[in-house]
Amino acid sequence: MATEGIDAQADGAGGAVTIAAIAAEAGVSVPTVSKVLNGRADVSAATRAKVESVIEARGYRPRRSRIGSGPGLLDLVFNEFDSPWALQIIAGVERVAARHRLGVVLSELGGAHRPRQEWLDDVLRRRPRGVIFVLSELEPQQRHQLETRSIPFVVVDTAGEQPPGVPTVGSANWAGGLAATRHLLSLGHRRIAVISGPADVLCSRARIDGYRSALEEAGVPIDPSLIRYGDFFVGGGYKHGLSLLDREERPTAIFAGSDFQALGVLRAARDLGLHVPDDLSVVGYDNLPVTEWIGPRLTTVSQPLMEMAATATRMVLGLARGETPANLRIDLATELVVRESTAPPHSR
Amino acid sequence: MATEGIDAQADGAGGAVTIAAIAAEAGVSVPTVSKVLNGRADVSAATRAKVESVIEARGYRPRRSRIGSGPGLLDLVFNEFDSPWALQIIAGVERVAARHRLGVVLSELGGAHRPRQEWLDDVLRRRPRGVIFVLSELEPQQRHQLETRSIPFVVVDTAGEQPPGVPTVGSANWAGGLAATRHLLSLGHRRIAVISGPADVLCSRARIDGYRSALEEAGVPIDPSLIRYGDFFVGGGYKHGLSLLDREERPTAIFAGSDFQALGVLRAARDLGLHVPDDLSVVGYDNLPVTEWIGPRLTTVSQPLMEMAATATRMVLGLARGETPANLRIDLATELVVRESTAPPHSR
Repeated sequence: MATEGIDAQADGAGGAVTIAAIAAEAGVSVPTVSKVLNGRADVSAATRAKVESVIEARGYRPRRSRIGSGPGLLDLVFNEFDSPWALQIIAGVERVAARHRLGVVLSELGGAHRPRQEWLDDVLRRRPRGVIFVLSELEPQQRHQLETRSIPFVVVDTAGEQPPGVPTVGSANWAGGLAATRHLLSLGHRRIAVISGPADVLCSRARIDGYRSALEEAGVPIDPSLIRYGDFFVGGGYKHGLSLLDREERPTAIFAGSDFQALGVLRAARDLGLHVPDDLSVVGYDNLPVTEWIGPRLTTVSQPLMEMAATATRMVLGLARGETPANLRIDLATELVVRESTAPPHSR
Repeated sequence: MATEGIDAQADGAGGAVTIAAIAAEAGVSVPTVSKVLNGRADVSAATRAKVESVIEARGYRPRRSRIGSGPGLLDLVFNEFDSPWALQIIAGVERVAARHRLGVVLSELGGAHRPRQEWLDDVLRRRPRGVIFVLSELEPQQRHQLETRSIPFVVVDTAGEQPPGVPTVGSANWAGGLAATRHLLSLGHRRIAVISGPADVLCSRARIDGYRSALEEAGVPIDPSLIRYGDFFVGGGYKHGLSLLDREERPTAIFAGSDFQALGVLRAARDLGLHVPDDLSVVGYDNLPVTEWIGPRLTTVSQPLMEMAATATRMVLGLARGETPANLRIDLATELVVRESTAPPHSR
C-alpha cells in the first residue's frame, strides 16, 4: 500500500524530534499532529496553532524519504497570469517538470502578492516536491509552515526583498534599464521617459535605477515628470503614454516596463497621430514572441523568462533532493534587442 | 489516516464487482490489482495488460466516495500551449477550480494530439477529480482506463470527431466562418481568401465550410487557390499571407484562422507595402486581448474561450459528482467584432 502523507508512526523513527514528542508537548494525539502536518481541515484553529508552535519551536522536519512518495507534483504560483509573459514561465517550468514526470499545479493569487492561508493548506495537503512563487511570496509564518513540512520553494522575479536563505531566480533588471536607456541616448535622445511597473516591485525599481544611471553618466539631468509607475499591462502603457505625449514638451523616446506596456504606448502614439520611430522611439521589456510580429517591430530588452523558470525548477528539485545549491540567488543576463521602434529623434 | 488511492479491501464492498474477484480471475494478488488501478509503475507490462483486460471485461468501477478523498486536483491538458489563446483557457479553468479548492495540474503534449501512456499513468496515480483535454484526445484504450477508474473527462475544442458519450465543449465555428465571410462580402469583397488551421482539426473544417456557405449564398464562385490550411500560429499566417498577396490576382480580403495568424498576415502585407484596410481587409479569429491594441485594431470573430473553459470545468465536476449532464455536447456562440482592419475594397 502506498505510504502517502506524513505518516506519524513511521516518520519519527529517523528524525531527531518525533511526532509523538510533539503530540505530548502540545497535549494532543499523534493523529492530530499528523493532520496538522498534512494541512487537513478537521482540526480546530486553536489546536492547529498550538501544534504549529511546538513544531516550530522543536525544529521538527519530516524525513525526506516520506516526501517523494505521493503523486509527483510541483506547485507554480503567480500573483496573476494576465499576460503572455506568464506563458513563457509556465513553459519553462513544464519542460523541466515533465522530464521528472512531475505534474505542475498552477495557481494564481488573484493579483495579491501573498497567498491566503486556505491556499497554503491545500498545498500542504497535496505535498508537492516544491513550490515556485512568481511575483508572489509568503508571510514569515507561512514560510515556516513549508519549512516544517520540508517543502522547498524558490521565488522567481521577486516582488519584494526576500529574507536571507530564501532562494530567488531573477534577471539583470538594473542592467536592462541601463542598456535600454544607453541605446536611446546613443541615438541622440535627451528627453527620455520611463514607464515602469509598480513602485513596490523590486524589478521596477532596479530598471528605473538603471535608467537614472545611464542618464547620469551621459550628463543628462533627470526630470521626475518623465518617470512613471504603473502596472505591467497594456492599459497602463496607454494611459501614461497619452499623458506623456499629449503636451508641448513631449519626450522623444519612451522606455516601457513590459512589451505589453509598450503596445499601449504605441497605441497612444497612433491615437495622437505620432509616427514610431520618426516622432517617437519606444523600447519594450521582456521580448515576447509578439514583439517580432507587430508593426513596427519592437526594440526591447530580452529577459530569459523560460530559462529563469527552468533554473528555478531545477533549483527547487535540487533542494527537494536535499542538495545545497551553489548559489541561492541567481540573476540571468538581459540583452537589448534592437528592431524598428527606435531611431534618432526626428527634429529638435 | 487519510484513505487515498483506490483501496482494495474497502472498495469492493459497495460495488457489483470486487477487486478480489478481478484478482482471482486475472490470477494475481489483490494488491497487484490495486497497483494497476493506481497507475503504479512496479507491475510488469504483461500483468498490467491482463489486469486491465479483466477490469474492462467485468465493467469494474471504483466507488465514487473513494475518488474525492485525495488532494483535490483537476488535470488540464493541451496539445501545446504556444499561444496566449491557452492563457484564456487556463484562466477559465482556474476560476472554477479555485472556487472548489481544486489544484489545476497543467500539462502539454508537446504538439501531439494524443498523450503517451506514461502521462496517463501519472494521471491515474494522482487521481484527479477529472481531466479536461484541449485540442487533444485519448486512444480508445486510454479512454477505458480513465473510465474504469471513474475519472471523468471533457474535451474542449475537439480536434477530431469524438465517439458517442464523450462530452465536449466548443464554439460555433461554422457560424463564425459564415459571419466573418458575410461581413467581407457585405463590404463588397469578392476575392476573399481563407487561411485556416490544420485540415484534420474539426474546428478548421467547420470554419472553412462556413466560409464556403457564405460565398455560395452570395453567388460568388469558390476559388480553391484561395483556401489554405496551416497551423494557428503567426508564422503560418505570414507564409500563406505572402504567397496569397505576392501575385497579380491577389485577394482583397483574408479571413485568418486565429488572431495570431492574422498578425502574420498583417506583417506580410506590411512587408509587401500593402495598407490595411485600404489595400487589404483582414479578419482574425478568437478576439484575444492583443487585437484591441495593435494597429490597425483587428476585426475578429470572438470565441468565448474563458467561458468555454469554465463550462467544461463545471461539466467535469458535475460528472465527478455522479451527475448526468443535460447536454453532452455544448457549443457556445461566436460573435463578429468589427474594428479597423476591414473596409470596402479600394479599387477594382
